[in-house]
Amino acid sequence: MKAAFQGVPGAYSELAARQLLGEKCHTVACETFADVFCAVETGVVERALVPIENSLGGSIHQNYDLLLSQNLHIIGETYLRVEHALLCHPKSHLKKLTEVRSHPQALAQCTHFFHTHAQIKPIAFFDTAGAAKSLLDEASLHIGAIASVLAAELYGLKILQRNLENAVNNYTRFLLLASKPQKIKFDPSHKCSLVLTPKKNTVGVLHQILGEFALREIDLLKIESRPDPRSAFEYHFYLDVHCGKEKKVFEKALLTIEDFAEVKVLGIYPEAKKTFLPKLPRSMKSKTQKN
Amino acid sequence: MKAAFQGVPGAYSELAARQLLGEKCHTVACETFADVFCAVETGVVERALVPIENSLGGSIHQNYDLLLSQNLHIIGETYLRVEHALLCHPKSHLKKLTEVRSHPQALAQCTHFFHTHAQIKPIAFFDTAGAAKSLLDEASLHIGAIASVLAAELYGLKILQRNLENAVNNYTRFLLLASKPQKIKFDPSHKCSLVLTPKKNTVGVLHQILGEFALREIDLLKIESRPDPRSAFEYHFYLDVHCGKEKKVFEKALLTIEDFAEVKVLGIYPEAKKTFLPKLPRSMKSKTQKN
Repeated sequence: MKAAFQGVPGAYSELAARQLLGEKCHTVACETFADVFCAVETGVVERALVPIENSLGGSIHQNYDLLLSQNLHIIGETYLRVEHALLCHPKSHLKKLTEVRSHPQALAQCTHFFHTHAQIKPIAFFDTAGAAKSLLDEASLHIGAIASVLAAELYGLKILQRNLENAVNNYTRFLLLASKPQKIKFDPSHKCSLVLTPKKNTVGVLHQILGEFALREIDLLKIESRPDPRSAFEYHFYLDVHCGKEKKVFEKALLTIEDFAEVKVLGIYPEAKKTFLPKLPRSMKSKTQKN
Repeated sequence: MKAAFQGVPGAYSELAARQLLGEKCHTVACETFADVFCAVETGVVERALVPIENSLGGSIHQNYDLLLSQNLHIIGETYLRVEHALLCHPKSHLKKLTEVRSHPQALAQCTHFFHTHAQIKPIAFFDTAGAAKSLLDEASLHIGAIASVLAAELYGLKILQRNLENAVNNYTRFLLLASKPQKIKFDPSHKCSLVLTPKKNTVGVLHQILGEFALREIDLLKIESRPDPRSAFEYHFYLDVHCGKEKKVFEKALLTIEDFAEVKVLGIYPEAKKTFLPKLPRSMKSKTQKN
């Protein structure tokens, strides 16, 4: 199985691909998100992994745009906890470092480290994995990089410190894409992602749409409105819902909504567990367990 | 009037501050968004400008988090079209350039330029304005920078080309913050930003909330759900609405919603015009004009 991702080998997107598809998956690096979509559409790869939202940053609209304009289908998802590691050349160590390279966003997420290591200067780089790769290319002992543990493994670098990031709640949700929808048995716990574009921008149109779901006890998991960048009047709504108890009921909801909004189903797929979330106290757990 | 922004002088946030507060406004550069909020709370400045959403990237959750945890109030907004300019040392010109520095995101937004100028290498830098400043500091004639026109003005650089970006629909919405809510006369066209946290996570709770607005003909302008990063069960909804016809009716809507959700009003302020949007055809214009 071949899967495309945006970035260079060792990028967090590649880590997400391995997390979801297993270590044996053959990953293919692409320069842009558009290239990733193209790789699946032209059959170069069977799958693609793209980030869709980050807990600190928000949704990645570029990928929603591509999902709207292209014809790929979401067939899975995974949550990746962003864990930044401090890497160096195998012959170096922490005391030798005078500068550390990474993407500006990753450097900004590790300011605590730089405050406590004033002798080390943060240096901006195109991407985290590229910064890691450059250490080996240049064989420099005084330069470090902030990147994934996978990057350390790929480029044979030493891991000096894990979890360098300030915030523990930094995670990214990735979507698994394919050229055809997944043939899966209907299950109430499955997630459906869709984009709705109301035919008329009237007061209460979203309330009307959500009413069709609420009426049928279809649970809303995510909602986001976005003005169409090409128009002052049109809005898109990105929604994730649980499929609910019955296939027929779910399909009826969509059919009814089509009366007042354009509906594009982006995919139906099993919901991923957020394994990185803090463990629940026993009392809360018992409420959700089936007896 | 002093206004804080995140970044170095010449950053797009500073441009937004000048766009909203005028050229005479005294801008104060801060390292992080948390520092920006702190500058207003401690009275170092009277105002702050923070980005809240970008048309390509999405919402900036970090600033929503700060709006939730801190006690500042939104008193205005502005939309800034992100226009990247190619800058160089006043004694240089396009043919001399061998590399161009900028933030990786800005470089990624200008790939068309790099594809047609293969002799010029893109180089990652912490921020756009910092890249511009570095040209003057180093007095190098073969290095260029991608940054705002304001950065060119501030650092005395030559503007080689404007609008270097691939996409024309790249704009950022900024919020104007103050320590106290603005005393303004109630107006139906005013915008209200609020965060709602349902007391129970039940099916249809959002439909119920939106019903209170729809019932009173209060227009929804933006909605976004976000799972509370500290909890597996709680959700926040970020909403922007028009205040509607009557103050009393608007207040009644919020009061009713408080029965089933925690409500935090982030601010009531005049809505900004999106002047960068494509001009509307005459037929559509006439529909919105008052006769």
